Amino acid sequence: MDSFEFVSPTKFILQKDADKLCGEEIKKISDVCLFVHYGDKFTYESGLHARITESLEAAGLEYYELPGVEPNPKVSLVRKGIEICREKNVGCILAVGGGSVIDTAKGIAIGVYYDGDVWDFYSKKAVPEKALPVGTVMTLPATGSEGSNGSVVKNAETGESADVMADFMRPAFTLMNPDLTLTIPKKQTVYGIVDMFAHVMERYFSSSVDVNLTDYMCEGVMKSIIVNAKALMKDLNDYNARAEFMWTSVVAHNGLLATGRNQDWATHTIGAQLSAQYNSVHGSTLSVLFPNWAKYVYRDNLPRFVQFANRVFGVEVDFYDQEKTALEGIRRMREFFKSMGAPSTLAEIGIDTDEKFAKMAEDACRFGNIGGLKVLAPEDVEAIFRMAVTDEI
Amino acid sequence: MDSFEFVSPTKFILQKDADKLCGEEIKKISDVCLFVHYGDKFTYESGLHARITESLEAAGLEYYELPGVEPNPKVSLVRKGIEICREKNVGCILAVGGGSVIDTAKGIAIGVYYDGDVWDFYSKKAVPEKALPVGTVMTLPATGSEGSNGSVVKNAETGESADVMADFMRPAFTLMNPDLTLTIPKKQTVYGIVDMFAHVMERYFSSSVDVNLTDYMCEGVMKSIIVNAKALMKDLNDYNARAEFMWTSVVAHNGLLATGRNQDWATHTIGAQLSAQYNSVHGSTLSVLFPNWAKYVYRDNLPRFVQFANRVFGVEVDFYDQEKTALEGIRRMREFFKSMGAPSTLAEIGIDTDEKFAKMAEDACRFGNIGGLKVLAPEDVEAIFRMAVTDEI
Repeated sequence: MDSFEFVSPTKFILQKDADKLCGEEIKKISDVCLFVHYGDKFTYESGLHARITESLEAAGLEYYELPGVEPNPKVSLVRKGIEICREKNVGCILAVGGGSVIDTAKGIAIGVYYDGDVWDFYSKKAVPEKALPVGTVMTLPATGSEGSNGSVVKNAETGESADVMADFMRPAFTLMNPDLTLTIPKKQTVYGIVDMFAHVMERYFSSSVDVNLTDYMCEGVMKSIIVNAKALMKDLNDYNARAEFMWTSVVAHNGLLATGRNQDWATHTIGAQLSAQYNSVHGSTLSVLFPNWAKYVYRDNLPRFVQFANRVFGVEVDFYDQEKTALEGIRRMREFFKSMGAPSTLAEIGIDTDEKFAKMAEDACRFGNIGGLKVLAPEDVEAIFRMAVTDEI
Repeated sequence: MDSFEFVSPTKFILQKDADKLCGEEIKKISDVCLFVHYGDKFTYESGLHARITESLEAAGLEYYELPGVEPNPKVSLVRKGIEICREKNVGCILAVGGGSVIDTAKGIAIGVYYDGDVWDFYSKKAVPEKALPVGTVMTLPATGSEGSNGSVVKNAETGESADVMADFMRPAFTLMNPDLTLTIPKKQTVYGIVDMFAHVMERYFSSSVDVNLTDYMCEGVMKSIIVNAKALMKDLNDYNARAEFMWTSVVAHNGLLATGRNQDWATHTIGAQLSAQYNSVHGSTLSVLFPNWAKYVYRDNLPRFVQFANRVFGVEVDFYDQEKTALEGIRRMREFFKSMGAPSTLAEIGIDTDEKFAKMAEDACRFGNIGGLKVLAPEDVEAIFRMAVTDEI
């Protein structure tokens, strides 16, 4: 078991109408707030925008709006938010939406206190020292940003996606109203589920030993994801499964499941290159890449992949041929993704050429080689891209 | 799945020598601190006292000491601590020890801001509104107080034990140095393990439905306790198992495992009466009572007890006689406790008369009937005491 530090100070409230509490929660922090959101059809037509502004007004708050967040959120919008916060003396940022909105809000929160360009934090030229408080109204459980210490944004000029992390970037509060997630279309629901499952796997596929508490919790969360995914694929309106996923999104990514162990974030990093170059949806990159990453690395920690197959997917262990068991576990992972309609090859997400494989492999390792269970160099990453052309395991 | 609010702002650090960080952690909060501890042989002779005071001095802190905390800690010492805090303008309380020390510190922390007698909070005559920050150096993982929102103390004059809970009573930081726990004697180690296992069970045996994320996590934590208990019973010096238990103590009791569900704290409440009347050690009351409580209530939620038997203890389900499976699970729970040498009858903890059964049953229900999975009236509690005379299941 490795040493660790863990802090997750966010106040989480899950209940019907939880979003309506945003005004009173912000009021405890500041009188002036910036309300960041997608500004899309759903935000307005679902009544969400009205519910939020009513709550802000009822609490007597002065508020400004920053609509227009897109998937793979842009640093340009973060810069715009920073300007508003400085100009209007904003004391709290409210993010209403999914990971893109929250990541934008967190970027603004650290940028406000920095004289240079906020991209400096993402390009590792500078380290943030403090942040404005961010509160969230979660509408799309997936990235876990509503409980995590990180923000990922894209620089449209250079095509790069990058992250920044600090515990003071964790949200002050997160309000979870499961009703807001009932209308998430199937495709987005599935990508969210894949993202959550990946967040657990990236902590589970560790080379640290003697961490059975975290192991068992990871396995439990993965089993729960599988059960609730089945329920949702049967009925997208299943309130309980939707509620479970709101909470799963937090638990999978607030760091609890990484306590006492190293992690392996190679797949997220490799997938980010697909998003940067092809604007691929995050969840789709994970469903394509994760089984291929696993197939590429499983021999480096065979017992872990056997344990995964057995404990998470219930595969009977073939003690005479444990590789077979490990591969069957990886196959079940792929089957789980496919059973929800998630893609399993690069072609399925519209990438039918290998022309950028080498560049993306270099970019994935631009801050150094990646991975924990197995350290990957650019040639390994390129090999994984080549494997992802087919879905053979 | 039920609505919930969950906040656990404590900063947790687990590493060798973590205790030596206490000075710098307190310095971030205040310049004046009250150092609460057992004042026993271990505290001084193990070098712990010197390590702590060196750290406090190195950080340039003004500090005062309150030694003398006993198991089932007394409200009289809490009162003494409150006086010191007021007199010396203490801004942070450092609890160095196990649950009794931390519960004492938390009692002081809320009492400082209250004009009346601090026992008013425990007797539910008053509700605390704020608390001094408390930091902890954990030496005896068991009660989970190092991450929880509660404090339990005893009023020696009336013989009552009672609790008070508020999220602002959660520690600001908790420092976990597994080396400090290597020398915990077997008996105390075992009682700690029983307490942790009970904390999970009291959340697991819920009547809420559709909470599989929390269910799976509870089951995982219980399996981890069983695995690590085996390792420790083989070798009390097993660093990894000791480290796992330090973290398990927190996870089992910071509220995470209760999210989205009701709970059943009847056994803790019933056991507290044995501590009040006979000064029984907390963990011993749980190992005696829990299997009997389970046997008394299991028919009220048979599927839950079957699931417990199957998923936690690996009992094959007899689908034609599920009661048999449930009872086998309860038997395994008892066996698990017994395998570590924990007591299973009242006689084993020195209680060989039923003269106080009726009074203790009344006392257990003095704030109303108890329990979540099954609500118990005094006659039910008395029946459980009578069952605990033998260890038949």
